[in-house]
Amino acid sequence: MSELRFDPIKNRWSIIASERKLRPHEFNVPRQDATPDNGRENCPFEPGRERMTPPEILVLPPPSPRPDGPSWQVRVVPNKFPALRVEGHVEREGLGLYDRVAGIGAHEVIIETPEHEKEMADLELEELALVFHAYRARLLDLRKDLRLRYVLLFKNKGRESGASLSHPHSQLIATPIIPTFVVHELNASRQHFRHKERCIFCDLIHQEQRLGERIALETGSFIALEPYASAFPFETWILPKAHQFDFGALTDDELLALARIVQDLLRRMKSLLDDPPYNMVVHTAPSPHPRPGQPDYWSTIEYDYHWHIELVPRITRIAGFEWGSGYTINPTPPEEAARFLQEADPIGGRHA
Amino acid sequence: MSELRFDPIKNRWSIIASERKLRPHEFNVPRQDATPDNGRENCPFEPGRERMTPPEILVLPPPSPRPDGPSWQVRVVPNKFPALRVEGHVEREGLGLYDRVAGIGAHEVIIETPEHEKEMADLELEELALVFHAYRARLLDLRKDLRLRYVLLFKNKGRESGASLSHPHSQLIATPIIPTFVVHELNASRQHFRHKERCIFCDLIHQEQRLGERIALETGSFIALEPYASAFPFETWILPKAHQFDFGALTDDELLALARIVQDLLRRMKSLLDDPPYNMVVHTAPSPHPRPGQPDYWSTIEYDYHWHIELVPRITRIAGFEWGSGYTINPTPPEEAARFLQEADPIGGRHA
Repeated sequence: MSELRFDPIKNRWSIIASERKLRPHEFNVPRQDATPDNGRENCPFEPGRERMTPPEILVLPPPSPRPDGPSWQVRVVPNKFPALRVEGHVEREGLGLYDRVAGIGAHEVIIETPEHEKEMADLELEELALVFHAYRARLLDLRKDLRLRYVLLFKNKGRESGASLSHPHSQLIATPIIPTFVVHELNASRQHFRHKERCIFCDLIHQEQRLGERIALETGSFIALEPYASAFPFETWILPKAHQFDFGALTDDELLALARIVQDLLRRMKSLLDDPPYNMVVHTAPSPHPRPGQPDYWSTIEYDYHWHIELVPRITRIAGFEWGSGYTINPTPPEEAARFLQEADPIGGRHA
Repeated sequence: MSELRFDPIKNRWSIIASERKLRPHEFNVPRQDATPDNGRENCPFEPGRERMTPPEILVLPPPSPRPDGPSWQVRVVPNKFPALRVEGHVEREGLGLYDRVAGIGAHEVIIETPEHEKEMADLELEELALVFHAYRARLLDLRKDLRLRYVLLFKNKGRESGASLSHPHSQLIATPIIPTFVVHELNASRQHFRHKERCIFCDLIHQEQRLGERIALETGSFIALEPYASAFPFETWILPKAHQFDFGALTDDELLALARIVQDLLRRMKSLLDDPPYNMVVHTAPSPHPRPGQPDYWSTIEYDYHWHIELVPRITRIAGFEWGSGYTINPTPPEEAARFLQEADPIGGRHA
């Protein structure tokens, strides 16, 4: 059984995933380039090999009632090697200086397309919107499990980003505690709102629109920014321009508009940075805390938060200084990153 | 001129190092294994090539007055491509939502040995102690610069750890602000001390000694622990068993005792994990804030802190989940890591 453990000195949680336990000689991945860029031959995410994964949780579009109807475009399955399992109770306890939460949770894989070679950047607009439909559906479904406090939706693309399978896929991990970084953001948002009755992210968007220096892309409803204190080159935040705290509340139209800016940005990054590995993470308000007997379940949601997507190409290494200090050295000023992205070719460039 | 920038949402500083500026096509290091394991032929840290580095800041042992006396064993030079430069004033200012500190600081390289192939783990005890003498000397010297609030001493070993040159070396970066992670630790220590009049690290050591499950090594004056909420497999903290807040105050005898446990630990890791890349970081109390007219300069130092060294083998990858959540998935319980290290061969194993 996995455990979430808290360090009171670092103010940090860690998942000790004993089911993924490795012995010392098995730790050879990063050095030896041993991770196979698994080809289609052995890929468990190919159409026709659905039995190689655990039984599916969701299929989009919904299965056709006609015998020869179209098959799946997006498919969600449990992770075969989960960091956390759904079965069990959430047991929270203190152990001397420490805190422990017995590790229940969910760990799922969102297969984005039946086509092995078709990266997220290559998806058609409607195909990408369908992936975000799956994100929303899984988020809303897992919120019903009151043991889980947060659903983290993310994508690792490329070996250097931590991906172990090359078939395009996203993941989600739902945990009984709210992740540390999200807590920081929630606290900052709440504090700003309490003082000023304004959302800190909305203020950020307005400030950036006034300055005009760090905007990579802007559409009717979304903005893609290089944050002022970008920790990494070409770190980009994609935010809805209107105040919205909950990814789960997005309409179909909004998901399509999101797909439009994400597709454009991914294609620019692909051509500009030579198909970089990247991590993409959805930051949204946590699942609301239920209150027994309280009819308005939603009253506890963090409405002063502002959901967004963070996209970080993994093109620099994290070294000892970064680990030891908690801040990073970023060789590309965000003002320049924004300009490069504005001028980049969204059609696909060298890799199109 | 570099800048330190603060993000009020993430509560995070970032160094925008525009002097190290890279254009998009130059970001190819992680993917293409392009970093040369630079051999001795071109190595600027070899004896006899002292002119390839900026002029030296410190040499140990001190240069012999005899014409044919022994040459250097440890040599400290400015980093040729510094993230921060020493010249200039510290200018702190707010910019709308943001904060900025014009980036002065120091960035130095501590060449640990004249021998290109002799890794830190291979150094003799007295040689390793001499490296720690250099750490102490530079820390004490840079504290005299009242613009600088913190001196971070660290080592990246191996390409995967972020090292760009293979000749054994450590680095230091001194900054006009205290690094985020250090601030977290200082706050936790101060709060614990205020409530309980005890050091939180001393409490941690006593708890671990009572439990006996996560101690990798213990000597008369030092203990090497696998922390309860280890973020990474074989993450190890080396702490003085007696309360000490300041690495700069260590005696020569203490530096030798430190060298003994570090040498033992590095050799065990080398044999157990097949010569892994790693990051090693010294965590110590920040430079005291000077108070004009106050005779007791030292009264402001954080005496409730407990200096220690953190050692993290870089044998797993950081993926999107970790970046997005702030917590990590660690597949090796610290209890098992401790047992493996206890049983490991400190003589050097396969690589001896």
